[in-house]
Amino acid sequence: MRPSGRAPDEMRAITIETGYTKHAEGSCLISFGDTKVLCTASVEERIPPWLRGKGEGWVTGEYSMLPRATHTRGSREAARGKQSGRTQEIQRLIGRSLRAVVDLKKLGERQITLDCDVIQADGGTRTASISGAWVALRLAVNSLMAAGDLKEDPITAQVGAISCGIYKGTPVLDLDYPEDSDADADANFVLISGGQIAEVQATAEGATYDEEGLLRLLRLANIGCDGIFKAQLDVTGG
Amino acid sequence: MRPSGRAPDEMRAITIETGYTKHAEGSCLISFGDTKVLCTASVEERIPPWLRGKGEGWVTGEYSMLPRATHTRGSREAARGKQSGRTQEIQRLIGRSLRAVVDLKKLGERQITLDCDVIQADGGTRTASISGAWVALRLAVNSLMAAGDLKEDPITAQVGAISCGIYKGTPVLDLDYPEDSDADADANFVLISGGQIAEVQATAEGATYDEEGLLRLLRLANIGCDGIFKAQLDVTGG
Amino acid sequence: MRPSGRAPDEMRAITIETGYTKHAEGSCLISFGDTKVLCTASVEERIPPWLRGKGEGWVTGEYSMLPRATHTRGSREAARGKQSGRTQEIQRLIGRSLRAVVDLKKLGERQITLDCDVIQADGGTRTASISGAWVALRLAVNSLMAAGDLKEDPITAQVGAISCGIYKGTPVLDLDYPEDSDADADANFVLISGGQIAEVQATAEGATYDEEGLLRLLRLANIGCDGIFKAQLDVTGG
Amino acid sequence: MRPSGRAPDEMRAITIETGYTKHAEGSCLISFGDTKVLCTASVEERIPPWLRGKGEGWVTGEYSMLPRATHTRGSREAARGKQSGRTQEIQRLIGRSLRAVVDLKKLGERQITLDCDVIQADGGTRTASISGAWVALRLAVNSLMAAGDLKEDPITAQVGAISCGIYKGTPVLDLDYPEDSDADADANFVLISGGQIAEVQATAEGATYDEEGLLRLLRLANIGCDGIFKAQLDVTGG
Amino acid sequence: MRPSGRAPDEMRAITIETGYTKHAEGSCLISFGDTKVLCTASVEERIPPWLRGKGEGWVTGEYSMLPRATHTRGSREAARGKQSGRTQEIQRLIGRSLRAVVDLKKLGERQITLDCDVIQADGGTRTASISGAWVALRLAVNSLMAAGDLKEDPITAQVGAISCGIYKGTPVLDLDYPEDSDADADANFVLISGGQIAEVQATAEGATYDEEGLLRLLRLANIGCDGIFKAQLDVTGG
Amino acid sequence: MRPSGRAPDEMRAITIETGYTKHAEGSCLISFGDTKVLCTASVEERIPPWLRGKGEGWVTGEYSMLPRATHTRGSREAARGKQSGRTQEIQRLIGRSLRAVVDLKKLGERQITLDCDVIQADGGTRTASISGAWVALRLAVNSLMAAGDLKEDPITAQVGAISCGIYKGTPVLDLDYPEDSDADADANFVLISGGQIAEVQATAEGATYDEEGLLRLLRLANIGCDGIFKAQLDVTGG
Repeated sequence: MRPSGRAPDEMRAITIETGYTKHAEGSCLISFGDTKVLCTASVEERIPPWLRGKGEGWVTGEYSMLPRATHTRGSREAARGKQSGRTQEIQRLIGRSLRAVVDLKKLGERQITLDCDVIQADGGTRTASISGAWVALRLAVNSLMAAGDLKEDPITAQVGAISCGIYKGTPVLDLDYPEDSDADADANFVLISGGQIAEVQATAEGATYDEEGLLRLLRLANIGCDGIFKAQLDVTGG
Repeated sequence: MRPSGRAPDEMRAITIETGYTKHAEGSCLISFGDTKVLCTASVEERIPPWLRGKGEGWVTGEYSMLPRATHTRGSREAARGKQSGRTQEIQRLIGRSLRAVVDLKKLGERQITLDCDVIQADGGTRTASISGAWVALRLAVNSLMAAGDLKEDPITAQVGAISCGIYKGTPVLDLDYPEDSDADADANFVLISGGQIAEVQATAEGATYDEEGLLRLLRLANIGCDGIFKAQLDVTGG
Repeated sequence: MRPSGRAPDEMRAITIETGYTKHAEGSCLISFGDTKVLCTASVEERIPPWLRGKGEGWVTGEYSMLPRATHTRGSREAARGKQSGRTQEIQRLIGRSLRAVVDLKKLGERQITLDCDVIQADGGTRTASISGAWVALRLAVNSLMAAGDLKEDPITAQVGAISCGIYKGTPVLDLDYPEDSDADADANFVLISGGQIAEVQATAEGATYDEEGLLRLLRLANIGCDGIFKAQLDVTGG
Repeated sequence: MRPSGRAPDEMRAITIETGYTKHAEGSCLISFGDTKVLCTASVEERIPPWLRGKGEGWVTGEYSMLPRATHTRGSREAARGKQSGRTQEIQRLIGRSLRAVVDLKKLGERQITLDCDVIQADGGTRTASISGAWVALRLAVNSLMAAGDLKEDPITAQVGAISCGIYKGTPVLDLDYPEDSDADADANFVLISGGQIAEVQATAEGATYDEEGLLRLLRLANIGCDGIFKAQLDVTGG
Repeated sequence: MRPSGRAPDEMRAITIETGYTKHAEGSCLISFGDTKVLCTASVEERIPPWLRGKGEGWVTGEYSMLPRATHTRGSREAARGKQSGRTQEIQRLIGRSLRAVVDLKKLGERQITLDCDVIQADGGTRTASISGAWVALRLAVNSLMAAGDLKEDPITAQVGAISCGIYKGTPVLDLDYPEDSDADADANFVLISGGQIAEVQATAEGATYDEEGLLRLLRLANIGCDGIFKAQLDVTGG
Repeated sequence: MRPSGRAPDEMRAITIETGYTKHAEGSCLISFGDTKVLCTASVEERIPPWLRGKGEGWVTGEYSMLPRATHTRGSREAARGKQSGRTQEIQRLIGRSLRAVVDLKKLGERQITLDCDVIQADGGTRTASISGAWVALRLAVNSLMAAGDLKEDPITAQVGAISCGIYKGTPVLDLDYPEDSDADADANFVLISGGQIAEVQATAEGATYDEEGLLRLLRLANIGCDGIFKAQLDVTGG
C-alpha cells in the first residue's frame, strides 16, 4: 500500500495555472499534488558567446528551491555563495530536456531561459519543473509567433517528465516525498510525445534492479506522461 | 497625476493570503497591487553562536527576487555566487524591523527566519516584505503558543512598512514601479502600531528635500500603515 | 551626562589634513575625535559599461575598515572573500551622497572613485567618510579644472554627514562609540549646504521614536553639518 | 563503420596498473584505450558530521580532469574557484555507484574517498573512473582486512561502468571521443556483478530513442561490464 | 646614477611613528622615503586549531595595499573576492620572518597578528612591512610583559628587511619604485640582528646574475639592515 | 647521516619520460626519486590582454597536487573554491623561471602554459616541476619549429631547479620529504645553464644561517643542476 492510498499506476492530481506572473513571456504554476513549481520563460535577443554567428538560438534552464519549500528550512544558495551539485545537475537536465523538442535553427538568434522555482516540495520537483517548463516555453513561443517575430514554430513535440520507483518491492508511478525517502530505486524519465525517450536517470538506492525492473518503470512512465501531455495541451490550447 | 490614476494618499489594493505553503510554521502571499511577495516564517530550535547562554532568541530576515519577477530577467544571485549589496541591505532591514516588535527574552532560545521571496515586482518589494513578514511571524508565534511551546506572547506590537516619494513635485503614497523610476525622492518608512517609528530611509534622487518634505512623507506613511495594520489584523484574527 | 562630558549639541573636534597621500588626485585624513578616515579621490578616464554613450560621468564610493581600526581585531574582508552587508550598505550610501552634489553631465565621461579607509574607529565612520570624501572630490575636481580638463565646475554644493541619536532619553549630536553602543535610536543624516536633505537613515534600537523625536535629531544634524561645511571650506580654500 | 574500426560490441583494450602511487591505501591507473584515469582510495578514520553516532562508514568520490587531458587545454577548476556542474554530477555518480556495493555498517566509522583524476581523455572518463575506483577500493579494503582493522569484508559485489550509444544509427559499445561527439544518443550504465543495475543515465542528443533502443544499449553494456569485471578480478587476485 | 640621486649603498630616510593607532596592542607608521606602511600588532588569547594542546603560541602576518596607495588605482581585493597571489606570498613572508625571532613556547597559548596596510607605495612595501611589524610586535610584547601576562621575553632578536637590486649594471640598496620597475635583478633580504639570514628571495628580471652578484647584494643588505635595526631600537627604547 | 643513506652532495635518481600524454604539444613525467610530476606544455594562439599589440608572447605556469599525492589526503583546491597561497607562490615561480630562458619577442603572439601536476610527492615538487617544465617547453617549441610556425628558437638556455638545505648541521643536496620536514634551513635554487642564477629562495626554519651557509648551499645547487641539465638534454635530443 502506498502512503497516499494511490494505486501503483496512479498519478497525483496535476494542475497548471498559466499566466501566473505578468512580466514573463510565458509562465505557469504547475502542481503535482503538493509539489508546486513556478515556471517562467524569458526571451532575450542575445545568445551565448560560443553560438555567435551560427544562426541558431539557445534554450536553457535554471532551478532553485525556495528555502522553506521543504519540511525543514534549507539554507539559501545565494547566501552560501554557490549552487549545490544537485541544483546544477537538475538545471542541466531541464535545459537538455527542452532542447530535445526545439529546432534551434528555427528559433533564430535568441535565447529562452526557463526558470523553475520550487514554491513547495513534496517529491518530483525536477520532473514537475520539466513538465511545466514546456508550458511556459509553448506560451512564450506562441507570443513570438503572434507578434510575427517567428515565422515557423520551432517546437517539434511535447516533453514531459515523471519519476517512478520501486517502493516496498512494487513499481509505482509519481513518487511523493514519503515514498521517495523510502524507495529501493528511483528513476526519472523524460519522454517525448509520440513514444520517444529523451532521458532516463535510474538509480538504485539500497536495493538494485534488473532489466525487467527498468522496463516496468519505463512503462509506468509512459502512462504518467500521457496524462502530462494531455494536461499541457488543455492549458496551451493545443 | 499619478500614472495609475490614484490619489496622492491612495494605496494600492492589499491582499494577504495566509497558509500559502504547507511546511512553514507561518506563511502568506502578500500583494500590494502587482507586487507579490511570499513570506514564510521558519522556527528553528537553535540560535546564532554569539547568543548562546543569554537565554534569548533571534529573529532574522532573508530576501530574494525570483529572476523573472521583473520586467527583464535578472541573473540569479546563487549563480553569480554572491548576494548584491541591495539584497543584503534589504535583508538587514527586514530583520531589524521585525526585531523592533519582538521581545527576544520571551521568545526563548529559538530562531525565527523570515524568508521574503518576490514572485512579482512592481515597486515597494521591501516594504511589502516587511508587512507580510509580520503576518508570517504572527502565525508562527500563534502556533508555538497553541502548542504550549511559548507561554507568553513575545510580539509586542504590529510592524508595517510603506514607501512614499515626491513624484513630479507632489508627495505620494505607495510608489509603484513607474513612479519609483521617476521620483525625485524616495523614502521607506517602517512604522509600529501606536504611532512610533522603527526606521526611516529617505533618499533624494535628482532633487533633494527639506524638513517640511520629510514630514509630509512621514504623514503619508502613517496613513498607509494604518491600512496595513488593519489588513494584517483581518487575516491573523487580530 | 555623555561619557565624553560633551553637551548634547556639541560635536567632537574635526580636523582635516589634505594631501595625505601623494598619488591620489585628491586626498585627506579626516578626524572626528578618535575616528580617523583616509579619503582619496581617484580620477579615471573610463565609465561603467551601462553609461557608455550618454555623455555623462560617474561618482562612486568604496569603504573598508582596517582590521585593527576597532577595539578587537576584525577579520579582513579580502581574506574572508566577501564584503559584509554593512560594508556594501555604507559604500552605496557614500556613492549616492556624493552624486547628490555632482552634475554628472558636466563631469564628462570619466569616473571618480572615493575610497574611504577607516584607520581608527570610534563611532561615526560612515559619516566621517562622506564628509571627508567631499573634500577629496573637491580637490580632485580643482586639479582637473586647473589642468583645463574640466571647463565648468560639476560640483553643485557641499555635502556633509553626521550621526545623531537618543542616548539615555536625550537627543545628542555626533555619537562616539560608547554612546553608539548604548543608544536607543541612531540616525545618520546626509545634508547639503543650503538646507536640503540628501539622505536620512534613522533606526530604533531597543526603544522607538516618534515624529517629534525625528525632528529633534534632524535639527541637531543641521547644527553639526554647519560645522562640517565650515571645516571643509577651511581646507579647500572655499 | 566505427572510426576506430571496432565491431559494434567491441570494447577498447582495458589495462589496470595497480599500486600506481605509493601513499594511497589503494590505487590504480586504469586505461580504456587512450582514456587514462588515476584512481586512489584514501582511508580516513573520521566520518561526515551527519553520520556521527550511527555506527556506519561512508564512501565518496571526487573527480577532476587535468587541464591538458583533452585536445585543447581547459581552465583549471581550482583557478576558476568552482567545480563545474559536469564535475559535480560525475562526483556524485562515482560515490553512489561505489556505495551500491559497500555495506556501510560493516565498513565501520571510517570514510573512504575515491579520487579519480583523468590524466588523458578520449571518451568514457566517468565510466573508467567508476571501474577503476572499484579496484582502488578493493585494494584499500584488502589492506584494512590484512591489518585486522576490518573483520568482515564490507564489499558485497563488483561494480563496473561503461558508455554505449547510437552512432550513425547503430548501437555501439564503449564510445571513444570521436564517436561521443557525434552520437545520436549516449548512455552510461553502472552495473553490478550478478546482473543487477546500479544506475542508468541515458540521454538523447539530436535524435531520440525508444524502449527497444534502450534495451539494446543495456545489452551491450552487459557485454562490456563482463569484460570489466574480469579485468578487475585479474588485478585484485579475484 | 640613481633617479633619486642616492649613492648605491644609500638608504632612503627611515621614520617610525609609534602608537599610530590607539586600539592595537602595538602599532607604528613606518616610512622608507615615500613608502608608508601602517603596522599593528593584535594580541588574541586564542591559537589556530592545529596548535591546540602544544603549549605554544603563533605569530602571523597579513598584508594589503589601500586601493590608491599606488600611481593608478588598483581594485580592492575584498571587492574582487580574493587575495592575489602576490598578497598571499607577502603575507606568508611576513609571518615566517617574524616567527624567526620569536620563541613560540615562551609566547604561550596566544596569537599575535601583524597587519601591514600600505598607505602609500614607492617600492619596498614588503620589506618596510617586515621592519615595521617588528616594532609593533616589540611594543605589544612589552605591554604583555608590563601587565605581567608574560614572564620571559619571547623575542630573541631583531628582524629587518630590505630590497636590493642590480640597476643599470650597478648593485644598489633600497630600490624605490622607478628603480624597481627597471631593475635587472631584484632581491629581498630578511636579516636578523647579529649577522644571520632569515630569508633570501632573489629574482632575475631580464638579466640574470651569478654567485658574485648575489654576494654583493647580500652585503648591501647588511648595510641597510644595520640602519633599520638602529631605527627600531630608537623608537622601542632599545 | 641522511635518512636515505645518500652522500651530502648526492641527488636522487632522475628519470624523465617524454610524450607521457598525447594531446599536449610537449609533455613529460619527471621523477626525482619518489617525487613524480606530470608536466605539459600547451600552446595557444592567444595572449593575455595586457600584452596585446606588443608583438610578444607569454609563458606561464600552473601547479597542483593531486589530493592523494601526499602521505595523508589533502582537500582538493577546486572543491575548497580557491588555490592556497603556497600553490600560487609556486605557480608564479614556475612562470618566472621559464620566462628567464625565453625570448618573448621571438616566441611571437602566442602563449605557452606549463601545467605541473604532482602525481606523487616526496619533497622537492616545485623544483621537479620547473626542471620538467623546461623539457615540456623544449618539446613544444621543437614541434612549433618543425611545423614552420617558428623560424627562430626562442629558448635561450636551459633552466633547472633543485632544493638544498641544512640537515642536522650539514648542507645537503636534493631534500626528500623526511629531510625537508626536519631541516634547519631550506633553499630552492633556479639556475640557468652556463652558471647564472634565475632565482634564490632561501628560508631559515628553526635555525638561521649566514653568508657562508648560503654559499655552500648555492654550490650544492650547482652540482645538482649540472645533473638536471644533462638529464634534460638526454631526452630532448640536445
